[in-house]
Amino acid sequence: MAIVLITGGARSGKSRYAEERARRTGARLLYVATAEAGDDEMARRIDEHRKRRGEQWITVEEPVEIGRRLLEQRGKIDAAVVDCVTLWISNLLLRNGDAEREIEALADTLTRLDYDTFFVTNEVGAGIVPDNALARRFRDLVGWTNQRLAQVADEVVLMIAGLAMNVKKGGACD
Amino acid sequence: MAIVLITGGARSGKSRYAEERARRTGARLLYVATAEAGDDEMARRIDEHRKRRGEQWITVEEPVEIGRRLLEQRGKIDAAVVDCVTLWISNLLLRNGDAEREIEALADTLTRLDYDTFFVTNEVGAGIVPDNALARRFRDLVGWTNQRLAQVADEVVLMIAGLAMNVKKGGACD
Amino acid sequence: MAIVLITGGARSGKSRYAEERARRTGARLLYVATAEAGDDEMARRIDEHRKRRGEQWITVEEPVEIGRRLLEQRGKIDAAVVDCVTLWISNLLLRNGDAEREIEALADTLTRLDYDTFFVTNEVGAGIVPDNALARRFRDLVGWTNQRLAQVADEVVLMIAGLAMNVKKGGACD
Repeated sequence: MAIVLITGGARSGKSRYAEERARRTGARLLYVATAEAGDDEMARRIDEHRKRRGEQWITVEEPVEIGRRLLEQRGKIDAAVVDCVTLWISNLLLRNGDAEREIEALADTLTRLDYDTFFVTNEVGAGIVPDNALARRFRDLVGWTNQRLAQVADEVVLMIAGLAMNVKKGGACD
Repeated sequence: MAIVLITGGARSGKSRYAEERARRTGARLLYVATAEAGDDEMARRIDEHRKRRGEQWITVEEPVEIGRRLLEQRGKIDAAVVDCVTLWISNLLLRNGDAEREIEALADTLTRLDYDTFFVTNEVGAGIVPDNALARRFRDLVGWTNQRLAQVADEVVLMIAGLAMNVKKGGACD
Repeated sequence: MAIVLITGGARSGKSRYAEERARRTGARLLYVATAEAGDDEMARRIDEHRKRRGEQWITVEEPVEIGRRLLEQRGKIDAAVVDCVTLWISNLLLRNGDAEREIEALADTLTRLDYDTFFVTNEVGAGIVPDNALARRFRDLVGWTNQRLAQVADEVVLMIAGLAMNVKKGGACD
């Protein structure tokens, strides 16, 4: 019942890695997509991801209620990929939700699942400080969420150029 | 008399890690805060950090003269945290100081201290190239400063999601 | 005939590291500079790099045809540094080239060389998502290129504060 957090920059191979890891756990696979197809660019990306995964996967589009979606799959699946934490945070902010409470609730939920979960998140805080306050609030929340999920995670991985570096569990020498 | 450089993105747990490491060295602890409470957002952050540290710490607010502050504590403390190098660079630029000379002077000063120092800095160069020249100058200076401090450091740590990855000294397998 | 990919943020010591590694392979050294001296800031940077390298190097300025330049040096040199992949991608985009095809062609070319190649690239995707579509396209392409080059590379290195972390080959414990 491992919890795995996969972080990294944009286009660093995070989703692909999460899917490969999930596939190794069994045949009953869930994909929780937090993206909403708001524009053509995003719709195209969602479609690319879906094609790559193939038909072995059940895909659920869920912008906000990740925890509930994961709980209702107990006893039914081998693994779930949640892609991605960053868009979930963005969705919470757009809805004026209580993000801190939601993050805490998700961290609690994870420990009650009976299958492996692979969370895709992003490194968003290694550039110049953003000009606008909303972007800074987003950046802070993503950082805190990553820390909170890393606390409950059995394994944390940093993706660089499509390659996984171990951050938690066993270290870089596994 | 170890010099430790702690780098990472925003909200990656750098300050907390620096404080924990400092606490393990002894009871006489100095916190050099380079932030100036220029607006409410920053004032709130400074206050949060201060509350978290508790009363075991002497806090000095020093936007520019870090080296002098550190030197005057010789023989008096067990460890110092400097938080953060990035704001110090920003303060130097705003005052039109000779940043390169100040950075060099700080690196020299560090080797003359008789207690452990923990420097918090940021990764600011892993986003898109900034539009404006001042941000690019800032980004370059932070990069150079990080390299210079890493040269004199006994240990360099990269924070990812609140977890420390060893970059210098002992490698990731310690 | 090693292929080495060196990635990292701005001013993290990537070029210097690439040059040092190349120097260790032999005396006949090629430097492929993808930068074009379009403004004073860039002209100054190019000049700084050239002075640092010294006269042991042949420098070729080539914004686009990297693969061709590398192929024509077969049998003539010990090592080449390509600095940098990110500017090459930018140059391809500015010329409306078929970037994906060029990237694939370069990856193929690399496997046919008879000397060591050191590619300098950048981490550009660890900040906030850029506002404009061209910057997002650039960011995506750089990410994909880094992944593709990492696939054919014998070694991938992440630079942090001037220090090299092994990402591929031997891991962090070498």
